[in-house]
Amino acid sequence: MRVAIIGYGNVARAFARLLEKKKSVYPFRVVAAHTLRHGTAYDVKGLPVEPQFGPPAASVGEFLDRAQAEVVVELTTLNPETGEPALSHIRAAFARGLHVITSNKGPVACAYADLKEEARRRGLEFRHEAVTMDGTPVFNLVRNNLPGVTIVGFAGVLNSTTKVILGAMSRGLSLHEGIAEARRLGVAEADPWFDIEGWDSACKAAALANVLMDARTTPQAVDRKGIGRLTPEKLADAESKGKTIALVSRAHRTASGVKLRVRAEVLDKDDILSSVRGTSNLLVLETDLMGRLGVFTLEPGLEQTAYGVFSDLIDIARSV
Amino acid sequence: MRVAIIGYGNVARAFARLLEKKKSVYPFRVVAAHTLRHGTAYDVKGLPVEPQFGPPAASVGEFLDRAQAEVVVELTTLNPETGEPALSHIRAAFARGLHVITSNKGPVACAYADLKEEARRRGLEFRHEAVTMDGTPVFNLVRNNLPGVTIVGFAGVLNSTTKVILGAMSRGLSLHEGIAEARRLGVAEADPWFDIEGWDSACKAAALANVLMDARTTPQAVDRKGIGRLTPEKLADAESKGKTIALVSRAHRTASGVKLRVRAEVLDKDDILSSVRGTSNLLVLETDLMGRLGVFTLEPGLEQTAYGVFSDLIDIARSV
Repeated sequence: MRVAIIGYGNVARAFARLLEKKKSVYPFRVVAAHTLRHGTAYDVKGLPVEPQFGPPAASVGEFLDRAQAEVVVELTTLNPETGEPALSHIRAAFARGLHVITSNKGPVACAYADLKEEARRRGLEFRHEAVTMDGTPVFNLVRNNLPGVTIVGFAGVLNSTTKVILGAMSRGLSLHEGIAEARRLGVAEADPWFDIEGWDSACKAAALANVLMDARTTPQAVDRKGIGRLTPEKLADAESKGKTIALVSRAHRTASGVKLRVRAEVLDKDDILSSVRGTSNLLVLETDLMGRLGVFTLEPGLEQTAYGVFSDLIDIARSV
Repeated sequence: MRVAIIGYGNVARAFARLLEKKKSVYPFRVVAAHTLRHGTAYDVKGLPVEPQFGPPAASVGEFLDRAQAEVVVELTTLNPETGEPALSHIRAAFARGLHVITSNKGPVACAYADLKEEARRRGLEFRHEAVTMDGTPVFNLVRNNLPGVTIVGFAGVLNSTTKVILGAMSRGLSLHEGIAEARRLGVAEADPWFDIEGWDSACKAAALANVLMDARTTPQAVDRKGIGRLTPEKLADAESKGKTIALVSRAHRTASGVKLRVRAEVLDKDDILSSVRGTSNLLVLETDLMGRLGVFTLEPGLEQTAYGVFSDLIDIARSV
């Protein structure tokens, strides 16, 4: 399959390296890449991992018109309040009859039902496995492996930055020292307050709820409090009682719809949500037929996110 | 699809109830059931959850010849050393052109490569999702959702009885009091030494390694030690150091093949393997492209095992 990539940062490079490594088994090739910063590159015979970028296409539409791709991989930076610019990129791709994969939680958190409906109407695939837990199967797990099961709720520790910061604070460091540690580890986003105030966790909760529970919600609708008011003293107090504090994204189905909440919760050490630290993340699904089950990833990196995109691509190649 | 069930105990009843509950969406029906104890029942229009058993068929072959089924669900009791009688039942079904689902770890642990090859040769499906972690997707997870990934090892806490016993012993109770507690909870098998000596964990390790790593091994080949020599003092000592003890099944790929080991391991509290208690179980997969990821089930019961069989049935219906 011929792939066009929008947004050519670290995940895109890891993805391109993975395609290169697996090309003898999976005949995918990147035929076009577009970034605001570096410009645009085209080669229907396949671009190298580090393309020679020419001048940028005037618009994403122009880029896609020229790209000769079958699948668009959308990897731009997120605006969580609007889902833009990813949302427009995805719509531009659908309008041209192209399947879409994104690692961008914005569109899934803000406009999933519309995007899914538009893809369905046009007979296209829309995939997003890497959105919440790097490449660990969550959406594909439920879709492929839990037929007939209704997801009635979930609870997840899905944000690395706050886990690193809370870990630092439980060792007596301040919030700001914790932020510095998260930056050193390379997990904090450019603006760490996006994580600290719980926006990232709210986006992931909304994305999960939209896809797994047909919640038709947005990050703004999540009842959200971050970790900004926690102190090292509060964390030490929890530790002394044999407990731990983590920023938890929760959903449960009520008569009036799906309720979503993001909170720093005091967890028993026996609670499986307390069992992942640092960049690892974990999700518990509550179901009707299968009780409670879950998935986790231990210390994922860019390679896993890239794999999530890759697995979506294989899935699309199989289903079309 | 028309289903014949061999072995009609609690899992079979839970499975039959689930089929009944979901029959408007999934048109499966049980057309025959066979047990040594209760006898045999046939009705091509569909048996009720509690069939009226007539005299037993003279053999499983005779039962299958008369059953008019398309899929055989094998739910008999395990002999872990030989995989019998399940193994013969599965071969009898294949010989008659019938797909097979089993919740029985014996055949998968003892003879997986042969069974898979026989099914492939005859164009039949052989499924076994419920074998290691009740209904939680493990085999289907890897097959459906981790394309291109090689499993290079795994570590799992997969045996409920020993978790309950070790939990009791860490509270100061003896091994025998722990066994009594596991019996009260209904998790211990008829012979608890099958669990205590690590046979159950070895069977599950062999089953996982055979399917996920093409190990072509057996439970006998697992380097196995049980929990029989552990004392409440050893558990208290681990607890006092902030550690926990669990019976762990491990596999890793070496130059000379897949090595499997079952041991009571002293785990750090930070180790995710230490985070499930009682009947819950957890598996960490080590992979080439996706780092370390895993799945868990919290306090599963018969319903989950029944769901595992049900999900296999749906998967077969979709793929044939």
